[in-house]
Amino acid sequence: MNYTNEDINRLKDFYFQQLTRDTLPFWFPRSFDKEYGGFLLMRDYDGSLLDDDKAVWIQGRATWLLATLYNTVEQKAEWLEGAKLGYDFLKEHCFDTDGRMFFHVSRDGRPLRKRRYFFSETFAAIAFAAYAKATGSGQVAAEAREIFGNCIRYASTPGLLPPKFTPLRAMKAAGVPIVMINTAQVIRETIGDPRCDEWIDKWIDELERDFVKHDLRCVMEQVTQQGEISDHFEGRQLNPGHAIEGAWFILHEAIYRNHDDRLLKLGLSMIDYMWERGWDTEHGGLYNFRDVYNKPVQEYSHDMKFWWPHNEAIIATLLAWTLTKDEKYAAMHRQVHDYAYSHFHDKEHGEWFGYLHKDGSKSVSLKGNLFKGPFHIPRQEWYCYQLLRTLF
Amino acid sequence: MNYTNEDINRLKDFYFQQLTRDTLPFWFPRSFDKEYGGFLLMRDYDGSLLDDDKAVWIQGRATWLLATLYNTVEQKAEWLEGAKLGYDFLKEHCFDTDGRMFFHVSRDGRPLRKRRYFFSETFAAIAFAAYAKATGSGQVAAEAREIFGNCIRYASTPGLLPPKFTPLRAMKAAGVPIVMINTAQVIRETIGDPRCDEWIDKWIDELERDFVKHDLRCVMEQVTQQGEISDHFEGRQLNPGHAIEGAWFILHEAIYRNHDDRLLKLGLSMIDYMWERGWDTEHGGLYNFRDVYNKPVQEYSHDMKFWWPHNEAIIATLLAWTLTKDEKYAAMHRQVHDYAYSHFHDKEHGEWFGYLHKDGSKSVSLKGNLFKGPFHIPRQEWYCYQLLRTLF
Repeated sequence: MNYTNEDINRLKDFYFQQLTRDTLPFWFPRSFDKEYGGFLLMRDYDGSLLDDDKAVWIQGRATWLLATLYNTVEQKAEWLEGAKLGYDFLKEHCFDTDGRMFFHVSRDGRPLRKRRYFFSETFAAIAFAAYAKATGSGQVAAEAREIFGNCIRYASTPGLLPPKFTPLRAMKAAGVPIVMINTAQVIRETIGDPRCDEWIDKWIDELERDFVKHDLRCVMEQVTQQGEISDHFEGRQLNPGHAIEGAWFILHEAIYRNHDDRLLKLGLSMIDYMWERGWDTEHGGLYNFRDVYNKPVQEYSHDMKFWWPHNEAIIATLLAWTLTKDEKYAAMHRQVHDYAYSHFHDKEHGEWFGYLHKDGSKSVSLKGNLFKGPFHIPRQEWYCYQLLRTLF
Repeated sequence: MNYTNEDINRLKDFYFQQLTRDTLPFWFPRSFDKEYGGFLLMRDYDGSLLDDDKAVWIQGRATWLLATLYNTVEQKAEWLEGAKLGYDFLKEHCFDTDGRMFFHVSRDGRPLRKRRYFFSETFAAIAFAAYAKATGSGQVAAEAREIFGNCIRYASTPGLLPPKFTPLRAMKAAGVPIVMINTAQVIRETIGDPRCDEWIDKWIDELERDFVKHDLRCVMEQVTQQGEISDHFEGRQLNPGHAIEGAWFILHEAIYRNHDDRLLKLGLSMIDYMWERGWDTEHGGLYNFRDVYNKPVQEYSHDMKFWWPHNEAIIATLLAWTLTKDEKYAAMHRQVHDYAYSHFHDKEHGEWFGYLHKDGSKSVSLKGNLFKGPFHIPRQEWYCYQLLRTLF
């Protein structure tokens, strides 16, 4: 059954209520660290703090979230105050002397670990951009543009950051163009930057040319520098949630480009392929990893259900439906929405559990750790609410 | 019920049959790479090859296994031929110019990845030592001693290898003294080395002083340089299988030291503590990770059942029983033996599946990957067979 106006109105209200009365109150204001700045986010199911370390990815993502809510939903003083805590902490404590960022710092902002990836930087770029818009600060906007420029350089200069493998197995990851498309979109929608459109084109072209395999009906997570499949455990590994996230960034771009038909078709294909690959027809939910040739996967968590692929799939299928009104995407959206809110959502304490076994049972009670914090769930609820608002 | 002589005889035969008619035939001779040397070990349930890369840890471990079988069970030409393939491949392809070893190489022995840990080196040391004994080669023995000396240097010189964390969170891992005790024991039992006894003393002292927490009834997997618990996700994480492996190395040492009572008590305590921590009283089997304060664990695989902790627990409880004849250890041995051979063992194609869900259902069909190969299972079957042989 296709979605009716009534369904859409109900969904719009649901996402807004979940965002403002369930997800956000779990995290804020209790996670504001008024003593050291930033956020204390590594929390158990009931909100109790499990670890006072700070994950730089999540500090940036939470800052982006709060500033974005302030910019787009309501000018709440609490949201701006939180965004300032995050911005100040990132700026003061999370950059190394070489301009690169740390991955993991202590509560008081001393570095614990730096990694070879530049995802801390991409999340700081969107955090600074959204905070610049919230405050109207030209200086913060200039800082955001500088970080964005660094990310472009890291993304487009092979070998600039230390590789995981030797040149013999020099792979490239879909994660780079995917995260950079979104980073550029956020920069464009907050502070604007003349580099965005051109680079988004390049990254979408790279995804389409090297990672999307129409003959195999899949999106690769890693390929060789020439876009070939590397027939080894890591090279064969698919990440359905990640490819579906990339798909909705491309659909989002299709709207910006006056409903560009090529981008629409590309994004829809990516959703279709990775839904076929990733949906568990036995227990429901999206698998964490699959093998392109359906061989066994080496990663231990391969058949677990993680929260964030479901957030990305809820956005992607809803966006696909709004752009096509195709009943197929209404059915997919309903399926992943119902699975997620009935399996991940904690009706007692709010927010979602992050990690389920294959059969949908809970693996662990925590709601925040080095990798999970206030990002995918509130972004999904916010994005879907904003999207559905525009339909009426 | 305590074990009778009949039980022991039956177990001795069982382990020998499993080793020689089930586990070894799964791997050899089909994994011998006569074209490039070394072994092709990343195999699916039916023996089909999933990946032709070579994990340096496992190349060393397989070489140790084959040479050890040749030295202690039967002088089979196939085992010596296999050990030579492994030794030659390790020597020609797996060392970097700085003397450190790679972690992961291509089929033809070109480096793919080098890591900060020196476990490739410890397994090469035992491989070379066992191969030196098998061939009577003084040159190979000298090479083994040189690698062993490097390992001692890496293990005893903080900061010599690049750390994972900054000095602010400079942890030390139980893995270093645990693996080094066994490395020294193998060196001593094959080629001999005057450094072994003294260093084994130091590593056991370090484990006892800094990692074993009698007040908490547990063995920490990581502690600060001063032996304190670091109250963060990684610092709180226990690895029951690993601590139980360390426990049996200490019991093995207790026998060598004329049934030293302090070592006996230490090893038994470690088994008792980590069995209490690690055994899943609901579904059976040993958890992969636990939290020292029973808080949620960050590692996704925390409640999965991995093959190797069960191999180590089978050895540890059997050794504990032979040293104490305590019915308690017979019961524990029976429990973990029965769980393992009924859940992990593949009765159709031989060998074990490596990875089960919490409930004991199979997570993945593969039998070899970057981390699993012919080591823990055949070592357990060989060690238990050898141990029980000495009782009559």
